[in-house]
Amino acid sequence: MDHPVIVEVTVVPLGTGGTSLSRYVAEVEKVLRENTQIKSLLTPMATVLEGDLEEVLRVVRLMHEVPFKSGARRVSTRITIDDRRDKKASMTAKLAAVEEKIK
Amino acid sequence: MDHPVIVEVTVVPLGTGGTSLSRYVAEVEKVLRENTQIKSLLTPMATVLEGDLEEVLRVVRLMHEVPFKSGARRVSTRITIDDRRDKKASMTAKLAAVEEKIK
Amino acid sequence: MDHPVIVEVTVVPLGTGGTSLSRYVAEVEKVLRENTQIKSLLTPMATVLEGDLEEVLRVVRLMHEVPFKSGARRVSTRITIDDRRDKKASMTAKLAAVEEKIK
Amino acid sequence: MDHPVIVEVTVVPLGTGGTSLSRYVAEVEKVLRENTQIKSLLTPMATVLEGDLEEVLRVVRLMHEVPFKSGARRVSTRITIDDRRDKKASMTAKLAAVEEKIK
Repeated sequence: MDHPVIVEVTVVPLGTGGTSLSRYVAEVEKVLRENTQIKSLLTPMATVLEGDLEEVLRVVRLMHEVPFKSGARRVSTRITIDDRRDKKASMTAKLAAVEEKIK
Repeated sequence: MDHPVIVEVTVVPLGTGGTSLSRYVAEVEKVLRENTQIKSLLTPMATVLEGDLEEVLRVVRLMHEVPFKSGARRVSTRITIDDRRDKKASMTAKLAAVEEKIK
Repeated sequence: MDHPVIVEVTVVPLGTGGTSLSRYVAEVEKVLRENTQIKSLLTPMATVLEGDLEEVLRVVRLMHEVPFKSGARRVSTRITIDDRRDKKASMTAKLAAVEEKIK
Repeated sequence: MDHPVIVEVTVVPLGTGGTSLSRYVAEVEKVLRENTQIKSLLTPMATVLEGDLEEVLRVVRLMHEVPFKSGARRVSTRITIDDRRDKKASMTAKLAAVEEKIK
């Protein structure tokens, strides 16, 4: 069943000994780009995913594991699921609906 | 494998036509109390779970589904995973570590 | 003093009686576009702001008030402040640092 | 004007060079306990505040500053405001409304 959701994810390693986290974010992004059935958008504060709920959650689970493989010993992962079942949601349609009403 | 994490969850139905959401929160809590292997704590803003990562994520998935069964057509679920692999984490130990340092 | 931060904001009215929230998001965006000293980026899940901490918080306070003016009686506003004081942060620089490391 | 809100706050220093953050959380809690007009509750994942919106935001602003004073150079602060204007909200009343419906 195709049940699309939009999910925002942030994977943050804690106690890494440096204020820069871009190295970890890049590793997480690489995992995403290998999972091409999931649409993703990198923003300055998070990654936004679009796809089937179960498939997206499977990818989020992989993303959460990435910093541990890069040496982190504590990871804080935040996920926000926007799940709408009265109509088919998409990142593009959400943005378009707002833009249309601003005019 | 026993790999305990602490996870904060908020399941919010959107567009329900009433400002009170306690009915939905109560339904979600009932699901939790039927899954007794997971420790849970209800706070004024969220539910905090403690348990094995995979098991907690399975329960979060069930919690997310509850408002749809109660008639909601859009649900926003927020999850924060605190996953520490250098020592065994628990809700009690986290609070105790802070309290000890306040004195 | 110029102390730039990056802040993610989501302003969600609860109990509005309809699953579509784009009308409310559009009203919030209009307030932002009238506050031109603050850089902002609309994503499918949030708005990202960049500017002086005090100024950004002042604008977030205005954004939080918007849905009440449109009739909402309960509003849930989420804010994430990324405040880095060892170097000057910007949305563009954050994204560039990740992109550079993916290659 | 007395306009009570419930606010969840998490103040997380990044890149501190150690996985334990309880020292920082304890410093933030001390600031809270000196601001006695604000009710607060420490949970395993956050601090929940109750009080007048402007007063709570003033205290959150102080909390955000604490880790910098303890040596952190990057701080991620997350805030969730639950602002209900159709009735007077409180942490106690919110929990009681849920508990009553579970029975």
